[in-house]
Amino acid sequence: MGAVTPADRRPKQDRSRATRQRLLQAAVACLAEHGWAGSTVSVVAERAGVSRGAAQHHFPTREDLFTAAVEYVAEERSTALRALFPQGAQGPRGDRRAVAGALVDLFTGPLFRAALHLWVAASNEDQLGARVTELETRVGRETHRIAVELLGADESRPGARESVQGFLDMARGLGLANLLTDDAARRDRVVAQWAAMLDEALG
Amino acid sequence: MGAVTPADRRPKQDRSRATRQRLLQAAVACLAEHGWAGSTVSVVAERAGVSRGAAQHHFPTREDLFTAAVEYVAEERSTALRALFPQGAQGPRGDRRAVAGALVDLFTGPLFRAALHLWVAASNEDQLGARVTELETRVGRETHRIAVELLGADESRPGARESVQGFLDMARGLGLANLLTDDAARRDRVVAQWAAMLDEALG
Repeated sequence: MGAVTPADRRPKQDRSRATRQRLLQAAVACLAEHGWAGSTVSVVAERAGVSRGAAQHHFPTREDLFTAAVEYVAEERSTALRALFPQGAQGPRGDRRAVAGALVDLFTGPLFRAALHLWVAASNEDQLGARVTELETRVGRETHRIAVELLGADESRPGARESVQGFLDMARGLGLANLLTDDAARRDRVVAQWAAMLDEALG
Repeated sequence: MGAVTPADRRPKQDRSRATRQRLLQAAVACLAEHGWAGSTVSVVAERAGVSRGAAQHHFPTREDLFTAAVEYVAEERSTALRALFPQGAQGPRGDRRAVAGALVDLFTGPLFRAALHLWVAASNEDQLGARVTELETRVGRETHRIAVELLGADESRPGARESVQGFLDMARGLGLANLLTDDAARRDRVVAQWAAMLDEALG
């Protein structure tokens, strides 16, 4: 991004980046709808309106495509979450509960569904397992970092770190509970109660 | 169980029940190890040392076998959990944290792994989806009932019900976090903190 690019090469790079993004978005939608078994590079290429050859130019293997897709969408969502609460803990007091609700929202919807399919497939496939474990470590750390920042948690306070971690574990469990049925009404009540408990624990 | 059984029929019934149990245990192990795609009635029958015909006599369809298997093992674990804390909330005060730890243990290990494969497969298969949704409602209610009982939670107290539910959601999320890597050390710290928060909320 920082390098000087000759003007005549820019449009080609833009097109290449747009193709890559279309592939990544199609890959997440495909995983969420059809699971790992139904998600191949060909299916995604067709969905994105890209030739199979072009798709393989961007992502040589199936594992490359789907781990990149989950990471890309996770990054997009992190950016959106930070933009939603630009003030973070500096915002008005009530913001901590709004932040808690927004964190839980990260674990419902197509991205979580896609990631879940990838995790479960990875638990039975060694090659995919190593890639997804590494991906999960990165995404998990970033989510924790954002949560600590937006909740204004002081991690030097005993129990603060574990309170935030447990809240994110709960959010993940709520995402799983929402997989087969619409669990929104129950989830709202649970989140309201634990956000209040988290608020107290964080001081 | 309560009916009088002629002595000459007993051994055959015992054998039939033993066969059924072997099939159910083999089905859970198979799901946990190979996922839904690799779990068929034939594979389970072979693992259990039972003919395919005998397996189909007990469980006419693949859906019958695997939903029955997850339900059977969940019931076994509920019984074991109740036996572990016969006094429940009447036990010494420190028991509430021990109960919290035992509840979390329900969501690690082969049963959770098997159930997770079944859930995720069900999210993309309509026929299986209806069965698993019904199963999950039953198992989820029973787990909540045991948790309330063993934790000695008074559900008429505002927030108590949601505190217990959120704790079980967290336990489910911890199970998911343990799928690809051994998360035991982090989990112990998170559970200690959340058990303390739960203890305070339940009074």
